[in-house]
Amino acid sequence: MFTKRIYNFSAGPSMLPEPVLAQAASELLNFGGTGTSVMEMSHRSKDFLAIFEETKALLKQTMNIPESHEPLFLQGGAWMQFSMIPMNLIGKSGKADYAVTGSFSGLAMKEAQKYGDIHVAASSADENHTYIPRQGDLKLRPDASYFHYCSNNTIFGTEWDYVPETGDVPLVADMSSNILSKPVDVAKFGLIYAGAQKNMAPAGLTVVIIDKSLLGYELPYTPTMLSYKVQVEADSMHNTPSTYNIYMLGLVLKWIQGQGGLGGMAKYNEEKAKVLYDYLDESTLFKACARPEARSMMNVTFVTGDENLDEAFAKEAAAKGLTNLKGHRSVGGMRASIYNAMPKEGLEALVAFMKEFETKNR
Amino acid sequence: MFTKRIYNFSAGPSMLPEPVLAQAASELLNFGGTGTSVMEMSHRSKDFLAIFEETKALLKQTMNIPESHEPLFLQGGAWMQFSMIPMNLIGKSGKADYAVTGSFSGLAMKEAQKYGDIHVAASSADENHTYIPRQGDLKLRPDASYFHYCSNNTIFGTEWDYVPETGDVPLVADMSSNILSKPVDVAKFGLIYAGAQKNMAPAGLTVVIIDKSLLGYELPYTPTMLSYKVQVEADSMHNTPSTYNIYMLGLVLKWIQGQGGLGGMAKYNEEKAKVLYDYLDESTLFKACARPEARSMMNVTFVTGDENLDEAFAKEAAAKGLTNLKGHRSVGGMRASIYNAMPKEGLEALVAFMKEFETKNR
Repeated sequence: MFTKRIYNFSAGPSMLPEPVLAQAASELLNFGGTGTSVMEMSHRSKDFLAIFEETKALLKQTMNIPESHEPLFLQGGAWMQFSMIPMNLIGKSGKADYAVTGSFSGLAMKEAQKYGDIHVAASSADENHTYIPRQGDLKLRPDASYFHYCSNNTIFGTEWDYVPETGDVPLVADMSSNILSKPVDVAKFGLIYAGAQKNMAPAGLTVVIIDKSLLGYELPYTPTMLSYKVQVEADSMHNTPSTYNIYMLGLVLKWIQGQGGLGGMAKYNEEKAKVLYDYLDESTLFKACARPEARSMMNVTFVTGDENLDEAFAKEAAAKGLTNLKGHRSVGGMRASIYNAMPKEGLEALVAFMKEFETKNR
Repeated sequence: MFTKRIYNFSAGPSMLPEPVLAQAASELLNFGGTGTSVMEMSHRSKDFLAIFEETKALLKQTMNIPESHEPLFLQGGAWMQFSMIPMNLIGKSGKADYAVTGSFSGLAMKEAQKYGDIHVAASSADENHTYIPRQGDLKLRPDASYFHYCSNNTIFGTEWDYVPETGDVPLVADMSSNILSKPVDVAKFGLIYAGAQKNMAPAGLTVVIIDKSLLGYELPYTPTMLSYKVQVEADSMHNTPSTYNIYMLGLVLKWIQGQGGLGGMAKYNEEKAKVLYDYLDESTLFKACARPEARSMMNVTFVTGDENLDEAFAKEAAAKGLTNLKGHRSVGGMRASIYNAMPKEGLEALVAFMKEFETKNR
């Protein structure tokens, strides 16, 4: 039983900023004198549309989204995008290129094979996804309909430290686990997508930002709900979107603006990650998994080298209110997910406990 | 500005029971001593899985779901099901039959045409969807992969007063706007689906209840996320489901049990609807749209016969805290959606205001 809020290092769904939760709780039964909860508002009501428009404007402003691009508020998570992307974009040439730098990018590639000629432009599988391929290593086809990569690999704790150059081929990025963590030049991308449950909002919302010039290449059997064109034309309201999640995203975006926007967020996230990586580099018990130049600012993976000790560590940490430090079931070890909402104090508490554990188990 | 909660007659998203909202607010920052919000819990965590299993068990118990059937917690709303159903079920014979008794059943039928040979088994379009076709009027094909109908037509305010008999052809029902409003014999159905935002939970959750013997007929290009088989095998967790909505559904189901389950709910809903229909039958100003035998217990449609008066009515009612009484943009007039969470007092307040309005505008 924890009477206070704990530090939750879950990879997603994950922590939300406490002031955001407090505001949501305070207006849950009666939002702004409307006499109803946001959960109860028709998506086409004046009250909800004001929330929707404000959230959309905040997202555009925070990410500096150019007029050429449109943000969409969809459902189904990144996995739904794994199909939706080829169903909408591969029609141009029938071909697409994928970089495989972790589990999800591999799954995205495999799903796309249902819809066209898919080519692996680069893979880091040869070294258990501990590194990020360099620009020169990407085998890109100039007639690909798009190139897909995952900008942050949640399971392996690696993050692309550059935006790939693909010439005229539209760049598609799964940013599920690092969207809103730092500034990104949206204009460079044909499509950005992210499940909301790491850095944006509660699970059940998927944000897509699409270059409108890519619309209109749906395969004939693409479900209406999975057509980007339909969703752009309907302003994400072809049917009822996940309204409460959109409201929560608005609260999170206001909180980010209070942290100095994405520039402020990036600085804070680097400071936070440094607390843990610096300790990992000096520890004689714990060892970081990802290569230094590929290290993620969002998911820090590490091991002791002894599976039993790893398990004891995660268990003892949880009892102290440092929860969900167990690595993904597919790779083992430990993972600290330190998204935007994880405060620096959480990292300090974690490192203090790691030092204690190291002394005891040296 | 309303300092108290109002009566919201929205067709969806719509009212949630006040005790449910109050409980959600009270544990929003720290659920049951876990030190986290349900919104922040990993879908694979022990804490969330306990909520998930409890919600699933409550749904099975409340709806008396037999072992042959499996409930799924998906996303995308009824519209996503319009595609998902043919993509999974039409493979058996390539044919499916649809009854068209309103807007959404028509849209479902049109979407299915992308995937096979679709036949309209019955339509009430000839009389502006004010009635429900009788069993004898259904032109059913014995080799159809399924027969689809919408058990309650939200826009037109009609409700099927019987469950169609289809022999060996699996029965598929869109119950978005009357699920959980009364007992239903689930064993009669091949598949039941419902967007949650009317009688179950906030928007962003779609409940599907499927007879497991229907699994395994996916068309080859069906997205993995849209395979019922995949979702049944993954217990709705092929990826992160909309976790908070599932938690909210659990709270709503507990509230329904406190109302005497679906039997109690049905009795209360009939009492509620009677308050309004009885008045409509005696009023000289207002007139119910649906034929008496086809009247919905969930959505009551009515008109004055004068569009300007209809508009004035909805506007004046809203100012008194009786909101969202305007009919759907496609049909005009008025609609009072009186789902489970609308208290009888809401109906009494509405009728009192209607009487006042009638006296003034006689």
